[in-house]
Amino acid sequence: MSLLVIGSIAFDKIETPYASRDEAIGGAAVYFSYAAAHFAPIRLIGVIGEDFPGEQIQKLQDLGVDTSGVETAAGETFRWAGRYEADWNTRHTLETRLGVFEHWDPKVPADLRDARYVFLANAAPAVQAKALDQCTNADFVMVDTMNLWIDIAKEDLLALLKRVDGIVLNDEEARMLTGETNLIQAARGVLKLGPKYVVLKKGEHGAFLIGEGVHFSMPAYPVEKVVDPTGAGDCFAGGFMGYVAQAQNTDPTTLKRAMLYGTVTASFCVEGFSVEELERRDRGMVEARFNELLSITSL
Amino acid sequence: MSLLVIGSIAFDKIETPYASRDEAIGGAAVYFSYAAAHFAPIRLIGVIGEDFPGEQIQKLQDLGVDTSGVETAAGETFRWAGRYEADWNTRHTLETRLGVFEHWDPKVPADLRDARYVFLANAAPAVQAKALDQCTNADFVMVDTMNLWIDIAKEDLLALLKRVDGIVLNDEEARMLTGETNLIQAARGVLKLGPKYVVLKKGEHGAFLIGEGVHFSMPAYPVEKVVDPTGAGDCFAGGFMGYVAQAQNTDPTTLKRAMLYGTVTASFCVEGFSVEELERRDRGMVEARFNELLSITSL
Repeated sequence: MSLLVIGSIAFDKIETPYASRDEAIGGAAVYFSYAAAHFAPIRLIGVIGEDFPGEQIQKLQDLGVDTSGVETAAGETFRWAGRYEADWNTRHTLETRLGVFEHWDPKVPADLRDARYVFLANAAPAVQAKALDQCTNADFVMVDTMNLWIDIAKEDLLALLKRVDGIVLNDEEARMLTGETNLIQAARGVLKLGPKYVVLKKGEHGAFLIGEGVHFSMPAYPVEKVVDPTGAGDCFAGGFMGYVAQAQNTDPTTLKRAMLYGTVTASFCVEGFSVEELERRDRGMVEARFNELLSITSL
Repeated sequence: MSLLVIGSIAFDKIETPYASRDEAIGGAAVYFSYAAAHFAPIRLIGVIGEDFPGEQIQKLQDLGVDTSGVETAAGETFRWAGRYEADWNTRHTLETRLGVFEHWDPKVPADLRDARYVFLANAAPAVQAKALDQCTNADFVMVDTMNLWIDIAKEDLLALLKRVDGIVLNDEEARMLTGETNLIQAARGVLKLGPKYVVLKKGEHGAFLIGEGVHFSMPAYPVEKVVDPTGAGDCFAGGFMGYVAQAQNTDPTTLKRAMLYGTVTASFCVEGFSVEELERRDRGMVEARFNELLSITSL
């Protein structure tokens, strides 16, 4: 069952203590698509500048991503530059050039509006809401956000949270949104804001899911060599939503398995720059790591 | 099957942002005993000063702890004072008065030497080795340590590691001992130093076990209200070794279940000051939380 994602398409410049990359394909919706395309057909809604190379669109199409909702606008594609410290937990944003993303007014083409599964990747809540308005057939909507929006667009975000089924957010965002330090209390606080499900990501420390009839907690996959953590959260969401769309189900068992698949796709993500490792892995490799993760976390 | 623990018996002064306690019973071997006594008869080897109240010994005995190996020496019982920041992860040691623990020469009474399961709680590696010399019937020995000994007694520690079956240590200690930043690589590095099993504790982020034929990773129990984290690692070890001694087995399934029991006893520990919550819980409560934890972490 097809899965629609709306969000940023970008080029990243990434520095780590060990290596760096410039003009690497990135953006939340791109990372999400690369992860989710392992599971289901993806409809990508986003905006690119005139500088965006056709070969990157072709690569997405080759993965089964419908790019007819990717709009080309006059100007430059969104660019982000960041640097990681050796502990991987400290990230410095060196530059953000929003380009065509800044004033984007998202349009979902008429023939893509019947998507039942929708993911609103990180963007201004007002933009996310505009996209959601157009997805009139959505059964299961998950949203991502970031500290910036909690800071400057909290009202919009709170309004949006009443309209979605679930939210994925990280520990810092959950604390900021609720004022609760304890993460399980923070997650319960987020549930009170509207969503039926909260997926709280803790980076290298795993993630947990809490919501209607379900509470599931798991460690991260033990990646031995991190190359670039950029996009890991988006790839988690991609694996999660991709599996849900494939299963066409949102019962507790499906959502728990989706947590494992999200963990798997996030682990591939951090093992390479940009989408390099996600591109290199096929569905068989996803299943193999899923089974390994299940074995590591089961009695 | 009886389980012998050798280590510190202390009084703690604990300050948290919310409350404080003075003259609270503590020490690694005491915390361990309170946790492990839920599972198996415990033999406690330690030293106390003349100031140690008989009622605390009585309490231990009431739990099924054989205290005949607790030596009373001239002087003051070990005292420690510490303060936690609101994030619980930052701990300041305010005072350490080793008292009778400083020059303790551990002696295991003849009739306690046949213990098959032995835990060497945190102490100078030379002291741990002396105790181990006397446990001539030990089948399964686990050891704990701390950054201080890695710093000032590394040779002694490395010699001891060749004589034990397993080690429990935290993330910081594993990194310090091996020089590896990545925790899975650090754990593999520790395995190369001798032990067959490494239990790596990550505090609120859970723990993992790696070793001969086993790799198991799990999140912590989601404690909603932390009161005092002191002793959590010792209680983890107590639940772990207590269950192993009860099961009289060290196969992978037993060790994985022991990880869950360790997580359960550690979670009780942090829910109260000192051993207050461990004391209040019975075996039925341990089982109930074990089942809850299993449900939270299983598909």
